[in-house]
Amino acid sequence: MRVERKLEVVSVIGAGSWGTALAMVLADNGHHTRLWSHNPSQVEEINSTHTNEKYLPGITIPELVKGYGDLAEAVSGVETIILAVPTKAIREVLKKIVQFQKEPLTIVHVSKGIEPDTLLRISQMIEEEMPSNLLGEVVVLSGPSHAEEVSLRHPTTVTVSAKNMLAAERIQDLFINQNFRVYTNPDVIGVEIGGALKNIIALAAGISDGLGYGDNAKAALITRGLAEIARLGVKMGASPLTFSGLTGIGDLIVTCTSVHSRNWRAGNMLGKGHHLQEVLDKMGMVVEGVRTTKAAYQLAEKFDVRMPITSALHGILFNEVNPKDAVDGLMNREKTHEVEDLANILDSNPAK
Amino acid sequence: MRVERKLEVVSVIGAGSWGTALAMVLADNGHHTRLWSHNPSQVEEINSTHTNEKYLPGITIPELVKGYGDLAEAVSGVETIILAVPTKAIREVLKKIVQFQKEPLTIVHVSKGIEPDTLLRISQMIEEEMPSNLLGEVVVLSGPSHAEEVSLRHPTTVTVSAKNMLAAERIQDLFINQNFRVYTNPDVIGVEIGGALKNIIALAAGISDGLGYGDNAKAALITRGLAEIARLGVKMGASPLTFSGLTGIGDLIVTCTSVHSRNWRAGNMLGKGHHLQEVLDKMGMVVEGVRTTKAAYQLAEKFDVRMPITSALHGILFNEVNPKDAVDGLMNREKTHEVEDLANILDSNPAK
Repeated sequence: MRVERKLEVVSVIGAGSWGTALAMVLADNGHHTRLWSHNPSQVEEINSTHTNEKYLPGITIPELVKGYGDLAEAVSGVETIILAVPTKAIREVLKKIVQFQKEPLTIVHVSKGIEPDTLLRISQMIEEEMPSNLLGEVVVLSGPSHAEEVSLRHPTTVTVSAKNMLAAERIQDLFINQNFRVYTNPDVIGVEIGGALKNIIALAAGISDGLGYGDNAKAALITRGLAEIARLGVKMGASPLTFSGLTGIGDLIVTCTSVHSRNWRAGNMLGKGHHLQEVLDKMGMVVEGVRTTKAAYQLAEKFDVRMPITSALHGILFNEVNPKDAVDGLMNREKTHEVEDLANILDSNPAK
Repeated sequence: MRVERKLEVVSVIGAGSWGTALAMVLADNGHHTRLWSHNPSQVEEINSTHTNEKYLPGITIPELVKGYGDLAEAVSGVETIILAVPTKAIREVLKKIVQFQKEPLTIVHVSKGIEPDTLLRISQMIEEEMPSNLLGEVVVLSGPSHAEEVSLRHPTTVTVSAKNMLAAERIQDLFINQNFRVYTNPDVIGVEIGGALKNIIALAAGISDGLGYGDNAKAALITRGLAEIARLGVKMGASPLTFSGLTGIGDLIVTCTSVHSRNWRAGNMLGKGHHLQEVLDKMGMVVEGVRTTKAAYQLAEKFDVRMPITSALHGILFNEVNPKDAVDGLMNREKTHEVEDLANILDSNPAK
């Protein structure tokens, strides 16, 4: 397949595994790609040996990717930046960009989270930080996509979404190639909520596995997890269909069943009896699901939505509830009619 | 949790891994359980050493389960039978039961398939074979439930469905316990179609893994596979919600991601380049997905539903299409709008 492609200079802000893998996709498509990192030795490594061993061990980064240590220089003159920093760092990075930026930027964010306390989605955080004269479009890119596999050019599908579908289609054209398939979906809220909340279910799935439970229990958790994510999302204005797509069930599956998933690994350690702080120390990478659990717990209260798995996780993470008691509690609810649970997803749709 | 339970004598017809595991659940609940097998040495093994090594290695079967070699004796005097034979053997077994049965029987079927050529669901096959004076109720039990894990009493959730919800609730009461959670759903068509067609997607997922593709590709196949199953099911009269539940996405996940799944294993060998007949010979157990692919391919034509994954599988299994070409073909469709694909699920709902 050949796509007639307009070549651009694109900046990827954040050289973790996902930012680096996306920079590789852009370079494979012929775009001059600037990969910014706050860590000078990482920039040096990218430019000298074309590797990023900490995040993508064994992978060679294409020559069209250049490491940048200076944020102003990295963003200078580009139309589009890919924001690939942890949710926690987003405001800080944007505040810096605002200081030197003169022209409007299209910002594609690829992080997955909800901000605790403000309960904002990432596109809302971006809109809050960027003055309107500097903000072109906000686009979210999400889907079942382990960075390691993308860097190996294994077949991967993702979804891009924006309020302005022309902006989403422009980003689709930027990234799409034979190995990296990009779909569009106009439901920004559904795409962002699905991507963020799946990390909670991945933690729960990891705990179940860590407790020695099997695939049957995990499948039940994923299925019921999707139902509670959709219940909340629809109340927040999302389309229920989005949760059946790549950024909903697709991303949930890959995050809950793959050895690459950090949230699953963190959950697994919790299930084996380690304490939260110990787990976070051992991971050495951001575990978005922990912060997201807090935010989703607050959202469930705010929107008055029943979220039993989120609530159980919140108990384990922040209130010293024993993981086995929590998971057994989820399994041992009184017998119910499945379809009533599922129908609640649609019933809670305010658009209905 | 305690359930006040009416104890019964129940017959399980078929002593494969799933029939045996379900017999164990019934025995755990205090029911006298007859487990019928056509194989005399298996009956002998069940009654002497309380094992079924070929199908559930290392598992001890409770004393309340008794092996039966004579079908008339196994069914004599019971109100309910659990039909746990492969789809291919269902008519043959029912024809035998009709010869000696005098009283109406409730038949709970736990197999997953569609009959090729007639394109009947299993409950329809049962209704066709049983004269109405001998048929009490037909109930389907389905969900994400590897037999091995059920026999280890790991937490498991399943769904029962029947036209008559009182019958479904009676079967719910028969099986439910602390490890084995049973939900009800009135959508018989959706439960049967989801259970049957997931085996096609499991074959496809196995092929993708066998080709060396990763979790991203598999998640995309599962997500799009669910969409095409739902598209067909809804056209056949199912509720779209059922496909988001345990017997839809739940069962699909467990079948596509678990090492226990035969259909996945068969697909994996196909992806590694083995021929279909060689794979079937090696498996030594029934691979329902192969027959189901043929039936689903016919259903897609009959109901005029687009089913690209089923169609690709059909080519691999029956028309010597190269697995890599077929999977790459699925990935390399032109860029599309995800939500149009998903909206088709609901648009094709005749009840809408």
